Amino acid sequence: MTRIDDLPVRDELRGKSPYGAPQLDVPVRLNTNENPYPLPEALVERIAERVRDAARNLNRYPDRDAVELRTRLAEYLTKTTGHEVGLAHVWAANGSNEVIQQLLQTFGGPGRTAIGFEPSYSMHTLIARGTGTGWISGPRNDDFTIDVAAAERAIAEHRPDVVFVTTPNNPTGNAVPRESVIALYEAAQAAKPSIVVVDEAYAEFSHGDSLLPLLAGRPHLVVSRTMSKAFGAAGLRLGYLAADPAVVDAVQLVRLPYHLSAVTQATALAALEHTDTLLGYVEQLKSERDRLVVELRALGYDVTESDANFVQFGRFDDAHAAWRRILDRGVLVRDNGVPGWLRVTAGTPEENDAFLDAARELKKEQNA
Amino acid sequence: MTRIDDLPVRDELRGKSPYGAPQLDVPVRLNTNENPYPLPEALVERIAERVRDAARNLNRYPDRDAVELRTRLAEYLTKTTGHEVGLAHVWAANGSNEVIQQLLQTFGGPGRTAIGFEPSYSMHTLIARGTGTGWISGPRNDDFTIDVAAAERAIAEHRPDVVFVTTPNNPTGNAVPRESVIALYEAAQAAKPSIVVVDEAYAEFSHGDSLLPLLAGRPHLVVSRTMSKAFGAAGLRLGYLAADPAVVDAVQLVRLPYHLSAVTQATALAALEHTDTLLGYVEQLKSERDRLVVELRALGYDVTESDANFVQFGRFDDAHAAWRRILDRGVLVRDNGVPGWLRVTAGTPEENDAFLDAARELKKEQNA
Repeated sequence: MTRIDDLPVRDELRGKSPYGAPQLDVPVRLNTNENPYPLPEALVERIAERVRDAARNLNRYPDRDAVELRTRLAEYLTKTTGHEVGLAHVWAANGSNEVIQQLLQTFGGPGRTAIGFEPSYSMHTLIARGTGTGWISGPRNDDFTIDVAAAERAIAEHRPDVVFVTTPNNPTGNAVPRESVIALYEAAQAAKPSIVVVDEAYAEFSHGDSLLPLLAGRPHLVVSRTMSKAFGAAGLRLGYLAADPAVVDAVQLVRLPYHLSAVTQATALAALEHTDTLLGYVEQLKSERDRLVVELRALGYDVTESDANFVQFGRFDDAHAAWRRILDRGVLVRDNGVPGWLRVTAGTPEENDAFLDAARELKKEQNA
Repeated sequence: MTRIDDLPVRDELRGKSPYGAPQLDVPVRLNTNENPYPLPEALVERIAERVRDAARNLNRYPDRDAVELRTRLAEYLTKTTGHEVGLAHVWAANGSNEVIQQLLQTFGGPGRTAIGFEPSYSMHTLIARGTGTGWISGPRNDDFTIDVAAAERAIAEHRPDVVFVTTPNNPTGNAVPRESVIALYEAAQAAKPSIVVVDEAYAEFSHGDSLLPLLAGRPHLVVSRTMSKAFGAAGLRLGYLAADPAVVDAVQLVRLPYHLSAVTQATALAALEHTDTLLGYVEQLKSERDRLVVELRALGYDVTESDANFVQFGRFDDAHAAWRRILDRGVLVRDNGVPGWLRVTAGTPEENDAFLDAARELKKEQNA
């Protein structure tokens, strides 16, 4: 039998495993930051209707430029952030991962580098590898905030071509202050200039405002978003970005033509018609997220401030053993490899109760 | 206003334009090798039904490994080629372009090279550029067949990591004989060994058999396919490959996790339920394609042998001027930049008549 290492794969892929959380069949799955609320039935019907229409034309290539979808996404951003953007500022792809891949193919790639402040979203690192972009691991403080002075020094020293700032950060949950992002942008411009990608996958869950208004006057700033979380549509794979129109033009040099299928565009358009309902679920989840923070702290856990739909909690001498003990109680959380910490997604009230019960039991064991 | 060249884009992207045929609003569009037959209404309804079911779970990530879809694709290949493949041999992505991108990220990339025999599918070249893979333009004979001895010499000289063989070839239409592909595979193994990608996007339209059975005993061979053409589903963006299971394992090291949305998987599964009907349309198109060849030759055109759903015809002193004259008569064909030649997609009988009328008029002008 042929194995991967018998094939002429790239050296940096040898011995590696595919990215992905374990998909285990347990009663309560709070490990992948999914939205626990299924789409409302009216939206399900609207999706079926829009896809039926799209299917009647499925023998033709989809709108290569996804004009209607990008226009609606721009309207959504304008409405929810107060910063006006239009079609020309917005680009969409199959998940924010593909958005990031296109950005790295355009502004990173062989002979270039990207920096992120870790721990952060590990796909940034993996997509850098997949696009031949050198990866620089920037620092964070012990409380997972970004040490701006240290980050500025790292940017000045390494002169990266792309700077990733994830806010709210995954897997830690905390948001990066507006003034820190401005400082990092300025450091990046002084050093190179570089493209600064603000990954706002969890923006809708934040206590604070989106950083979208920072786009004004900053042509090298990119804000990336996703419909996976706030729109409750992880299965749809629709990521998007807002930036200067020149950035949108530039990624079209590397995007695969017709990358966004007609059924994806139709489904996303249907979901955007139901924005108000979906953002209602977001409010419920924010309240549950805040409850998780309060109750975990009451149980004696350390909890990182969260502006996302998940909570990082610890500390554990052996986080993986703690992950296993929680799993033994039927609750799947995420071990992201951050030493001493685990991450739990805010689920339904019942799911969160089940998790908190497991966390309480675990604490008892630890104290026993 | 910021322009692309004001941004820190990669040097090789400067001055480039996005790939894509002109999207012009004309009565008869025969320029992108789309299938002219809309999906049957029963299939449209089945798509709506399957997508409705998928939408009820859209808040969850899709099946990361697309197990059901890959199983059904394997069954389709087994049934139509007589060569038995299963889930482990098949991989799927958002269009065959993404399949090819994943293959180049795995087996090509920075410091590596790929060869194609040109003119051929220009996305191979563009995806090589997008993945940092060096591109080698291999030779063809004047009649657009592959000169196997010359190709073998090019492979021995350049030792490429990936060899593309497009059969039937796009934009020329001709198929590559089985024994030529075997010879090229052997040359590639002797030189490196390299991965040989047989791009069979148009296989269902061929007079001959699929090369899928060549997979037996050839672990470095990959056959890529698409649902865009034979399945009449260009809007769906579903490409796939069959290969040794180790190749399928290897591309999972670079695929973006959850790359294939739940709605894409649901739509493709619905289409696979209607394979027999869709392959009926293929028979009609093959017959129309053969008619185009015969009638164009009767009009005095040179026509390349076609095993695809399109026909290359010429020769023109100025192919672009001829393209424009045909467009003036309301028929959009494709100028792929092959000097002296144009490409026309086989449409409905009425569309083909309109094209043939335009071609007849053009010939009269030329002879006047």
